[in-house]
Amino acid sequence: MRATIMRDWQLRVDDLPDPTPAAGQVLTKVLACGICGSDLHTLRHGAEVRSLREALAGDGPPDPMAPIPFESDRDTVMGHEFCCEVVELGQGVDNLKVGDVVVSMPVAFDSGGVHALGYSNAYNGGYADLMVMNEMLALKVPGGLPPHLAALTEPLAVGVHAVAKSRIAIGDSAIVLGCGPVGLACIAELKMRGVGPIIAADFSPKRRSLAEAMGADVVVDPRETTAIEAWRAADGVRPLVIFEAVGVPGMIEQAIRMSPKDTRILIVGVCMQPDTIHPLLAIGREINLQFVLAYEPTEFAAALAALADGKVDLSSWITGTVGVDGVPQAFADLANPEAHAKILVVPT
Amino acid sequence: MRATIMRDWQLRVDDLPDPTPAAGQVLTKVLACGICGSDLHTLRHGAEVRSLREALAGDGPPDPMAPIPFESDRDTVMGHEFCCEVVELGQGVDNLKVGDVVVSMPVAFDSGGVHALGYSNAYNGGYADLMVMNEMLALKVPGGLPPHLAALTEPLAVGVHAVAKSRIAIGDSAIVLGCGPVGLACIAELKMRGVGPIIAADFSPKRRSLAEAMGADVVVDPRETTAIEAWRAADGVRPLVIFEAVGVPGMIEQAIRMSPKDTRILIVGVCMQPDTIHPLLAIGREINLQFVLAYEPTEFAAALAALADGKVDLSSWITGTVGVDGVPQAFADLANPEAHAKILVVPT
Repeated sequence: MRATIMRDWQLRVDDLPDPTPAAGQVLTKVLACGICGSDLHTLRHGAEVRSLREALAGDGPPDPMAPIPFESDRDTVMGHEFCCEVVELGQGVDNLKVGDVVVSMPVAFDSGGVHALGYSNAYNGGYADLMVMNEMLALKVPGGLPPHLAALTEPLAVGVHAVAKSRIAIGDSAIVLGCGPVGLACIAELKMRGVGPIIAADFSPKRRSLAEAMGADVVVDPRETTAIEAWRAADGVRPLVIFEAVGVPGMIEQAIRMSPKDTRILIVGVCMQPDTIHPLLAIGREINLQFVLAYEPTEFAAALAALADGKVDLSSWITGTVGVDGVPQAFADLANPEAHAKILVVPT
Repeated sequence: MRATIMRDWQLRVDDLPDPTPAAGQVLTKVLACGICGSDLHTLRHGAEVRSLREALAGDGPPDPMAPIPFESDRDTVMGHEFCCEVVELGQGVDNLKVGDVVVSMPVAFDSGGVHALGYSNAYNGGYADLMVMNEMLALKVPGGLPPHLAALTEPLAVGVHAVAKSRIAIGDSAIVLGCGPVGLACIAELKMRGVGPIIAADFSPKRRSLAEAMGADVVVDPRETTAIEAWRAADGVRPLVIFEAVGVPGMIEQAIRMSPKDTRILIVGVCMQPDTIHPLLAIGREINLQFVLAYEPTEFAAALAALADGKVDLSSWITGTVGVDGVPQAFADLANPEAHAKILVVPT
């Protein structure tokens, strides 16, 4: 099969042997797979994250889902936002049949343990013609939902989870800092929950227009109006939850500094470098910082259901489509937030 | 009256005019007032905190309870952990009478606004013979509770509040890092709530023995056994809440590094310097950082009730007593954690 492969923090397109499903697994053909910002970050910052991880492994228990769980000097095929069609059943599979269209949390398991699909040397992700998934984690895509939208289940689930972790309720208000796919997913889920007003901020006009399409009530360019000024003008009294979806050093402190007392700040953006805060500012305002990662299986299923039921329309996210051979160029193109939000890989 | 006065970040003992109660206020004689670590920090770091505060005032609304709300080139009498006897009633006071023994949250208000008792140029705190408080905030001390214990209402309330903010419940476990009065108050409140096991860590043998007296189940010297090792040995499975009560740079990162997934970390220690964290470590474990300050009026009252009802005995905290003239020396003596936990000022 054809695949875009990462090795030594470089991408190349090459042929790989077709994968084989073990017992309880299915072989699938990739119908669509979104390119995630985390993959761009991994390609660019993976080496430093890996050494940080090793230096700071610390006192905690070993973490099977730790960042960079693969060997960088061996082949890794990324891609964890996939929608696939079942083409072959492994031993003992009885709830799926050939032709079923499915999505899955990007996790596979076998007798050797748990593997992060898209960040594993043992299992390839969706930047390839074929991939393997476990029957137990596969969710059938309801008939009416096209594969290119079903592939957005995973990024939407990130927003579903962040909003759930925030314990935000109707009557609260929200600020979303950064309107890449993670910020947009938060806005979409906040809107589905009926929370408002939702204030969104991004430097990019394209991303601001996507934030509006997701239902943000006020969308600002922070060079002109800061998010907190816009919040004060639009509301200024309801309890506030801030979703930090930028993920660069300094953003956590910036969120703390803009916060009124008792604000909850959800750290959804993934900052891979060290960061400096002034605890005294957070103490004076009794800030709550909730760091979040990924989602629960029920949240993943809820995201698929929201898409299938038409509760949310994410079609505006898709700004480009490439074949497997086009993935390296797509990685380069995604650096421009004006041109792209989500590029889908659609193998031919 | 006699008072220990701070001016230009220096302490001196001097005579001041007796304060006068306004309408709704009472003049009181200080029976006992605890010396708080925050006062030591303010004396030592006040100048830098003040400039930090000014530099970082940021986008938030003005905060009447901001650190260092007083002018440092004017007289300030600190002391916010006081128990007093009413000696004179201001106009319109009808729920207190001369001779009542009272405590109060360290806040006063008048037609000019809200003032932090002990951090104000307008109202003196308890390192003095006399002070003024508002009838509305004064709580009568139940008869059996001696003033030196009633003066510990305020530091105990800090623990009551931190534990309440943590949303810890029976079935969870706790680690308390640092066994100064703040850490000890957390242990005392955790014990009153029936949470366990409670693991406490401090370098000082004296403070470790106080942690045991408060009811900590396991107490360690982190040079020999880390808190998280002790937690794993004692429990290792219950949901964990960590109370960071040290308040020096690096402690937040240290708490994050030791945390298993989904740990809540309460930042109770007041770190006045900038601090560095690695967000990626907190993201991978979905850590929650709750910064806390002070207490609610109901929590202050709950602390007084716990002391009066004999639910907790804090007499072991009191390691020394001085008169108003002895405050400067007591500040110096408190630098040694082996010699002292809480020194009470008892004006003669």
